[in-house]
Amino acid sequence: MAVQETDGKQTAMRIDMNSDMGESFGRWTLGDDEALLDVVSSANVACGFHAGDPSVMLRTLSYAASRGVMVGAHVAYRDLAGFGRRYVDESPDELKADVMYQIAALEGMARSVGAQVRYVKPHGALYNRIVRDESQAAAVVEAIRSVDASLAILTQPSAVVGRLAAQAGLRVFHEAFADRAYNADGTLVSRRLPDAVIADPAEVAARVLRMVCEHEVVAIGGTVVPLNADSVCVHGDSPSAVAMARAVRARLESEGVAIRAFAGDAAASAARD
Amino acid sequence: MAVQETDGKQTAMRIDMNSDMGESFGRWTLGDDEALLDVVSSANVACGFHAGDPSVMLRTLSYAASRGVMVGAHVAYRDLAGFGRRYVDESPDELKADVMYQIAALEGMARSVGAQVRYVKPHGALYNRIVRDESQAAAVVEAIRSVDASLAILTQPSAVVGRLAAQAGLRVFHEAFADRAYNADGTLVSRRLPDAVIADPAEVAARVLRMVCEHEVVAIGGTVVPLNADSVCVHGDSPSAVAMARAVRARLESEGVAIRAFAGDAAASAARD
Amino acid sequence: MAVQETDGKQTAMRIDMNSDMGESFGRWTLGDDEALLDVVSSANVACGFHAGDPSVMLRTLSYAASRGVMVGAHVAYRDLAGFGRRYVDESPDELKADVMYQIAALEGMARSVGAQVRYVKPHGALYNRIVRDESQAAAVVEAIRSVDASLAILTQPSAVVGRLAAQAGLRVFHEAFADRAYNADGTLVSRRLPDAVIADPAEVAARVLRMVCEHEVVAIGGTVVPLNADSVCVHGDSPSAVAMARAVRARLESEGVAIRAFAGDAAASAARD
Amino acid sequence: MAVQETDGKQTAMRIDMNSDMGESFGRWTLGDDEALLDVVSSANVACGFHAGDPSVMLRTLSYAASRGVMVGAHVAYRDLAGFGRRYVDESPDELKADVMYQIAALEGMARSVGAQVRYVKPHGALYNRIVRDESQAAAVVEAIRSVDASLAILTQPSAVVGRLAAQAGLRVFHEAFADRAYNADGTLVSRRLPDAVIADPAEVAARVLRMVCEHEVVAIGGTVVPLNADSVCVHGDSPSAVAMARAVRARLESEGVAIRAFAGDAAASAARD
Repeated sequence: MAVQETDGKQTAMRIDMNSDMGESFGRWTLGDDEALLDVVSSANVACGFHAGDPSVMLRTLSYAASRGVMVGAHVAYRDLAGFGRRYVDESPDELKADVMYQIAALEGMARSVGAQVRYVKPHGALYNRIVRDESQAAAVVEAIRSVDASLAILTQPSAVVGRLAAQAGLRVFHEAFADRAYNADGTLVSRRLPDAVIADPAEVAARVLRMVCEHEVVAIGGTVVPLNADSVCVHGDSPSAVAMARAVRARLESEGVAIRAFAGDAAASAARD
Repeated sequence: MAVQETDGKQTAMRIDMNSDMGESFGRWTLGDDEALLDVVSSANVACGFHAGDPSVMLRTLSYAASRGVMVGAHVAYRDLAGFGRRYVDESPDELKADVMYQIAALEGMARSVGAQVRYVKPHGALYNRIVRDESQAAAVVEAIRSVDASLAILTQPSAVVGRLAAQAGLRVFHEAFADRAYNADGTLVSRRLPDAVIADPAEVAARVLRMVCEHEVVAIGGTVVPLNADSVCVHGDSPSAVAMARAVRARLESEGVAIRAFAGDAAASAARD
Repeated sequence: MAVQETDGKQTAMRIDMNSDMGESFGRWTLGDDEALLDVVSSANVACGFHAGDPSVMLRTLSYAASRGVMVGAHVAYRDLAGFGRRYVDESPDELKADVMYQIAALEGMARSVGAQVRYVKPHGALYNRIVRDESQAAAVVEAIRSVDASLAILTQPSAVVGRLAAQAGLRVFHEAFADRAYNADGTLVSRRLPDAVIADPAEVAARVLRMVCEHEVVAIGGTVVPLNADSVCVHGDSPSAVAMARAVRARLESEGVAIRAFAGDAAASAARD
Repeated sequence: MAVQETDGKQTAMRIDMNSDMGESFGRWTLGDDEALLDVVSSANVACGFHAGDPSVMLRTLSYAASRGVMVGAHVAYRDLAGFGRRYVDESPDELKADVMYQIAALEGMARSVGAQVRYVKPHGALYNRIVRDESQAAAVVEAIRSVDASLAILTQPSAVVGRLAAQAGLRVFHEAFADRAYNADGTLVSRRLPDAVIADPAEVAARVLRMVCEHEVVAIGGTVVPLNADSVCVHGDSPSAVAMARAVRARLESEGVAIRAFAGDAAASAARD
């Protein structure tokens, strides 16, 4: 959620912008991470299970450290061929161990280049699954607690994993999606429907501004839906995506909204919900 | 090297025994780790690149922690199909990142169960390669330094990687092989030759005792070769291997040699060489 | 289904026995394929996606060819870490291509050693999924038709994939499970329940004999359930499993039932259903 | 080698153009295969070990079939993370089985879409290795012979694998590289040297024309080196590479050279050497 800070006489608005990064693998490159790191304040770094080999991870962490961008562990099912976008019916114990492994690998490598992992954002099919699956959500929460209980989790509002994480004492932050259409109940319009993604940068920027300043979004049928987000997710895997991210940032800054990593916050959404 | 401790009026001999562990993967099991953890003082734990999935790693680390066995990162080339026994011509940068990833993953998971990674032992083809390859040896040393400079390295005497590690300020420990025949120049007899492996537990135990107490081994032609080892490597991937390890330990203890992890040592071989 | 052949004045009973094979991978061995090939008449050979590397496949195919055992492609989700036992939410197009690849690889290798792939048996989570999932079942059927429409499919009775395969003109054969308990509706008792697996070889052999000769099985509550099977599945991944398979075969043969591959049949179950 | 055909009173020159294709993997795309298939006459299709998942393979084969482009199996070491560019010290038996698997998979899938695999071109580190390594070269030759002895092999002149393949009765075709500089001894200038790659499309086209019509190339020091090639290799993994390939083809055709797949030839280079 954008926070109004009372700094002496002034009031400042601010929001985090996060994006997926480090999703190249070996010979294959994906996204323009260097360009995007000048736009966002948080980088969700792939940990080798859906994308990102160790060399890519190290390079991405170094970039992030040099720009002062906050790092999150973008953990996923073990599925390179499917880019982590396919649900894998792992047992909770398997999933817990897989997530621990990924967080631990990223944290250790991050320290070596002066970056610090501050949060976990599940990727793809895992992200979607633990919005509603109690058992797998609990496994992810357990994994985070076991490796580093100081890590926050970044998910969407009302997710099962957010509730369980908060109960377990983890900090929880919520994100909104810059270019996605919303349903009247606050869920995302399915990508299979024609109007799921908004392509016009000006419209996207205006929507994000409203999310940040008014804490609301206009849903697909015209209803105004309340939406409290600590971070706005932007994509970076195409040239137009980087342009979009820049448009959003420029508009926000022109309206006096600062782009700042969320994890400096003393209180997370979970505490305020 | 077995050390003679002056504890008041008494003098005690001691040595470390190390063995590879956590080399199961998914449905496939290898070795009897639980049995072996009651015999050895150090466990070389696979990190997922040649063997060991995250669930196996977590279980192995928990066992080791519960027995107070010291843990080492058994790092390898990325080669599950070849079990890390095939040389892979990785660039130094790739190799460094791959080794960092493995160490970091194991360290983070180890902390979560109260185990602590104290050393790195390269596995298989990587172990053999960096005995002589300067460039890959340097990459491994750099990886260790970058992730955790307090980690020791366990290798064979006179290895290039040992020299480079010592120069880089890392602690270096040396191992001997319990059941392998030695050449007169101190190298191992190739496994392709008929007498490379000694099968008789009593003979193996006697040889290890001589290594520990006399710092020497009888080579294949009868020559007595000096051999200073901080640790003795025993195998554990067959029922007879576990029996062999027990025979070695029993013989050593009956002669008053204590089995203790090497990394408590204030000084490593490198410092004494 | 065991068939009564009228050969002049005599009547002979016969049944196929199938077992999973070639499930080793690299350094890891699983099952005693050589022992089992002297017991069964059909070998479900892993194709590299859940188990079985190319070297293992070649060796298994050579063994099967030398014993005259019929070969089936044991196709699976791409999931070595989970041994193909975890559902993976592949799109129908991905699944079709994955299955085509596995069948094609096994067929080509089989020809090189004089073995011939005659059927496809899906493995693990894929086997279970396409008993009821129309979309994934259709993908598997399409894959078989595309690569080699002369291949039969081996599945359990009443499976969706069997119905779709028959509609597509593929031959369909049905299997029963030697050591598994059945529910009154003909489904298997879940492995999570205590009495799911029958451990006594004599009892298992007697049950199989009844399946073959009387076409029925006694379900968990005592109900007698009709069961028409062309093949009986036996396990081979433990020493006791091989002993069990031998006990079943010995009992069947002592009662005059011949163990013969099903695919020599002119008519498959699908045609008779 | 470009062949002068006597077709009635006319004489026609022709050459094959080959390029690597199907090197995408899952979410990652590489190269513009569709564009390139309108330029070349032979497609080296990745088989899943260095690149190319089954879905990519099927798509690439369908494209090739629809354009009448000849297909080759682009076989490699099992090394997705290294894109098959790293030497892997596989035993000859392992390598043979790995290559058999890849050829078999591609052939079976090709038949399903009406494409036909006509040759094998080893990829990357394997290509380079078997130019000189007798043992691994023999393994590749054995693999081809075992799976389909009607397949040709495409390699560079004077390669060990070419000699062994010819001795084994396989057809051998030789390729030249369109944009690579040559040494006076006919080998390629190492990519580590500054002038290894020629960037100017007009110069590349002129060089290829000379290779095809005069059977020679000007080496790095000015020496004219004889060069008999059945095929010219062009790259396709960047927009400029496709433009380069088009420039080469246009120049060749403008000089009356037809671009035609080599494997229609009754006689291969091996027979003429």
